[in-house]
Order: sequence, then C-alpha cells, then structure tokens
Amino acid sequence: MKLARLLYDGPDGKSARLVVVQPEAQRSIDLATAERLRLERQGATHAAALRIASALFPASMADALSTGEPFLAAARLACEQVDAQACSPLSDARFLPPLDPPLIRDFLAFAQHIRNAGERMGHPPADEVFKRPVYYKGNPSTLIGHEQEVPWPNYCDWMDYELELGLVIGKTGRNLSPGEALSHLFGVTIFNDFSARDIQRLEMSGGLGPAKGKDFATSLGPWIVTRDELDLADLGMVARVNGMEWSRGTTASITWKIEELIAYASKGESIQPGELLGSGTVGFGCGMELGRRLQPGDVVELEVDGIGVLRNRIGLPEPRGWEPQARTTAFPV
Amino acid sequence: MKLARLLYDGPDGKSARLVVVQPEAQRSIDLATAERLRLERQGATHAAALRIASALFPASMADALSTGEPFLAAARLACEQVDAQACSPLSDARFLPPLDPPLIRDFLAFAQHIRNAGERMGHPPADEVFKRPVYYKGNPSTLIGHEQEVPWPNYCDWMDYELELGLVIGKTGRNLSPGEALSHLFGVTIFNDFSARDIQRLEMSGGLGPAKGKDFATSLGPWIVTRDELDLADLGMVARVNGMEWSRGTTASITWKIEELIAYASKGESIQPGELLGSGTVGFGCGMELGRRLQPGDVVELEVDGIGVLRNRIGLPEPRGWEPQARTTAFPV
Repeated sequence: MKLARLLYDGPDGKSARLVVVQPEAQRSIDLATAERLRLERQGATHAAALRIASALFPASMADALSTGEPFLAAARLACEQVDAQACSPLSDARFLPPLDPPLIRDFLAFAQHIRNAGERMGHPPADEVFKRPVYYKGNPSTLIGHEQEVPWPNYCDWMDYELELGLVIGKTGRNLSPGEALSHLFGVTIFNDFSARDIQRLEMSGGLGPAKGKDFATSLGPWIVTRDELDLADLGMVARVNGMEWSRGTTASITWKIEELIAYASKGESIQPGELLGSGTVGFGCGMELGRRLQPGDVVELEVDGIGVLRNRIGLPEPRGWEPQARTTAFPV
Repeated sequence: MKLARLLYDGPDGKSARLVVVQPEAQRSIDLATAERLRLERQGATHAAALRIASALFPASMADALSTGEPFLAAARLACEQVDAQACSPLSDARFLPPLDPPLIRDFLAFAQHIRNAGERMGHPPADEVFKRPVYYKGNPSTLIGHEQEVPWPNYCDWMDYELELGLVIGKTGRNLSPGEALSHLFGVTIFNDFSARDIQRLEMSGGLGPAKGKDFATSLGPWIVTRDELDLADLGMVARVNGMEWSRGTTASITWKIEELIAYASKGESIQPGELLGSGTVGFGCGMELGRRLQPGDVVELEVDGIGVLRNRIGLPEPRGWEPQARTTAFPV
C-alpha cells in the first residue's frame, strides 16, 4: 500500500487528508471519505460515520500510525469496493510530506559517501563513523512534499541535495536487537536532505553537527510504501537535476544495515510510531561528491525503485538579513 | 505567571493538565477546571463550559501557546475569583515537563563553558563557536519533568548534568533581528541537559554532533515563568548534587545574548510557538568542567533566581544490550 497526505482547501482553510495512492490506476483514495461512505452504506448516520472515519484517518500520519495494525486493517477495508466519490485523479493531487514525524534522525550509513565527502573536504573520516551509526537530528517543521518548492535560506551560497531512503517507524520499541528491529519498520519513502554546504562546513567545525546547514528544508515523499511491498536489499537509487542524471546507487551498498539503524535509534530510549530515520546519502548521491552545485530554479528528482519519484524545484534566495557578529572577547575571565 | 503541566489519573488513564502555579500560596490552579466553573457561573451548561475550557486549555502547552495572547488573557481571567474546586495543594503536584515542544535547539552561548570544556577535552574550541551561536537539536520525546527519574542508558558509564536556561518561544517569526526577537519569547524555565559524556565524546568525533550522548533524557521545569516576571540580565544559576553546591553562575556571563539566539534560530526558517531553545551550559555549570561525575541515585537540583528549583534523581543503569560491531570493510569500492 502507498500512503500519502494531500492538501485540500475547505471552509476553514487548508487541511491535510490521508490518501491511498494507486499509481497504476492514476488515482488517490481519500481514506476518511471512503470509510465514511462505507459506514453509511452499512447504516451509520452521516454524523456517526464522519466521527469514526475522522478518528481512524486523522490529518496526521504520525497519529494514524500510532493506531498500529488496526490502522492498516481499516485502510484496506476502506479501499475495498471503494465509492467513486472517494477517488480523485492523481493529476489533481497536491502533495504534502507523507509524514509529520515527531522526530527525525539522519544517519551516515553508506561508507562510499563518507569516503567521498572526506576526500572533498580534505580530511579522512573519523574512525568513529565505522564503529557506530552516527546521526544528527533533523527539523520536522520544515519538511516539504513532492513538487513543493525548496526555500533558499539567506545564509546559503552553496546548495546541494542528498539521495537517501526515509525509514518510517511503525511501533514503539526500546533496546531492540537488529533481529527485532525490522518489525518496527512501517514503510519506506524517499528523503532529500537538502544541504547548505557553506554554512554546514563552518558550523560542523564547532562540534555540534549540522544545524542551519540542514534545518531550512528536507523533502519527503511522494508517499510511504509499506514494508510488505518492497525488498529493501537492492533498490536502485537515482538523482536527476533538470532531467540529467547526476547520481546512481543502490541500497545494496549500505554499510550500516537498516535493522542496525533502527536498533541503534532504540538504544537507551523509546522509538515511537511516526519517527523518521534517514539512511544517509548513498555513495555519489550528492553534488558535493561530484564537484557540482545546485542553482536557483533547478529541478531535483530523486527516484527509488519500487517507491517512485520525489521532485522539487529550488526557490530563489531570500534577501540577506541579520548576521551574528563574531565575539571579540571570546574568553572572559 | 508560572505555568506547569501536571499528571492526573482518570478513567482513561494518565493525562496532562495545564495549571497555574502559585508557590507563595503553595497551590496550583487547574486552568480548564477554573475556566469551566467560571463559564458555568455565567450560565453556560456543564457540557458547553467543558467544551470551551478544554479548547482554551488543552493538555499540550505547545498547543496552548499557539493561541498566542488570547491564551494568557484567558488564563488570567480563569484565575480571577477562582473556585476552590479548581485549586490543589502544591505538595500533591506530580510534575510533567511544562512544555511538549515540537523542536528543541540547544546552543553554546557561554564562552566560559566552551573554554572549560575545551581544556578538559584537551583541545581548544573552534573559532567558529565565537562567530555564530552553534546548536544541536535535542529529543523532545525523552523530556522529563521536576522530580521524575533520569533513566541511565545502557551505553553510559559517565553521566553528567548541564545547568541551562530553557527559552520558550511564544509566536512564529522568520529572519528576525535581535531587536525583534525578544517579543517572540514567551517565558523561561530551567533546562538540565543530561549528558552521557563517554559516548558523546566518541560520537562527536564523527562530525554530526551529540546524539546518544543527549537523547536519552532532558529535564525541564518545574514551570515556565512568563517573560514579564523576570529580568533576564542577571539571574543567579546554581547546581547542587545531593545537597552540595557544585556549580554557580549567572546569566550576566552569557556570550551570545538571548535575543541573538532567537534571531539566529529564525534565520532562513520559521520558529513556532512552543519551540524550546536551551541557552547552553553556564560556565562551570556541569561536572565535566569540575572533574566530577554523577552516580546512580544522585539527586541533582538546578536553581535559577526567579524561577525555582528543578530536581531529578538519577536512575539505575539499564542492562547492557546489543552493541554495533565495527565495520571492517569500511571502504568498499
């Protein structure tokens, strides 16, 4: 099953709706509408059917995933003998990020990317990244979806993309072993970790990892594919810029396995439904590794076998604003 | 006004309630109950009063803060001529973190702490941390409140506290100047950035900043003090372990001013109501700077003038679990 969140206009303004996407039929099925109509056919009043359908299929994918197995079972039921009223042409879809995660961790899981980045940055990678799967935490509030524009922040002169898998957690767990971890994976999506390389390099020298270099935007989508539909062992991954292929890789080259990433995330803390893990960039999966940069107006497409294509256009730079002034009295008594 | 979130037991299990704390009267006022009773006194039915009071004072402080000025106005009104039914002795209070932030950023804002940490770690701080206020992002899902136990994760042998201010954002903003930024500060609380120093040091060498070194627990509270009640220029900050003073500092020693932290957070992205900024540790505000370590069972108290005392006991270590195995084929072709 492929699950997405679409943008709708209503009397109270814009809202998000959960849908099942059927690319082969070029349509989306609004889950709350399909379920409401199904309940009404079985004799529920409109108000009661609406109440139950809204509870099963809220605007938040993270809330929906928190329902666990009953959510997927309800989604399957709602899509059986679906009423035409609940269906829309896929060409009309305005995609939001398919997930509103409470937490994003983005890992370094592909050794080839680590090696390439180290060479470009002029220093070898630390041994540590091969001893454990390190990660930084992303910014859930600036996620964008398929076909949404990437804002160009006012401190950036060097924009880049990163070709990654997005791993969606489906149920809570703590101190999982890799053998237990895969059953906590709900599904997979495409993750474009847009990066302001100039400030990222500066701030990372401060030791706290990337912040402004990543926080302005991350793209996710176009939909989440449930785990049962994919063999994660060898999915082709491609990035195109303005239609030209820049990057090509495969999940087969991953160094820290997906189940190790999930197990590591759960060490000493509980992972929750709706959390998002980024796999980190596949080898040669960003412009920095290729000596290339994105420009305003560029269109970046990431494609992953069995998932689809995530496409975003890069926006125009925001006007320059306030800049922090270096402290001259750096070391007070 | 001092705002907190307390834990209640009900027919549907545990829930959070927003309260105003009046330490001088040794009581808390349940805001939804006070407002419901006020509306009932004015003629509303119980059901209607409950509906409106619940919408004004939800379980989520971030949701409440998203209401903006009308939230504080409603809280003040609810506390006027408050009914005794809405009040509880403070001694009965079971505190939750006063905020459920959608995002946590924790800065390095005190040069003395940066210098001390660099000396203890055996390398000088990077120039970068005096050119801009660097930060890492924390884990909102493992926040704990006053008097809640700190879990000791299974990968930690060196536990530490960090004495910080927590800055609560009250309204949205983007590309703010420092002059504009303070009006986006709703209030201030105490922030204990518990740290697993051993793994923190290892993972920071990987370049992505602290992750497992911080993600297991952060303490916040006991309440949020609204900005109007505090002069932030010179608040004394003290840490005690098992009743003995370990750390003493003041907000007067801050290197990156609070308004600069907020302005920087808003660069190239929108800050939102309910976001939390940590000031970073005040100079000599953690055990690492003093050559001291916490032990299981230790009680850590952080006190900040005008706010109060945030107290947590350190729990027992979790059993060891799965550990990642270093990759021997670190550099595949």
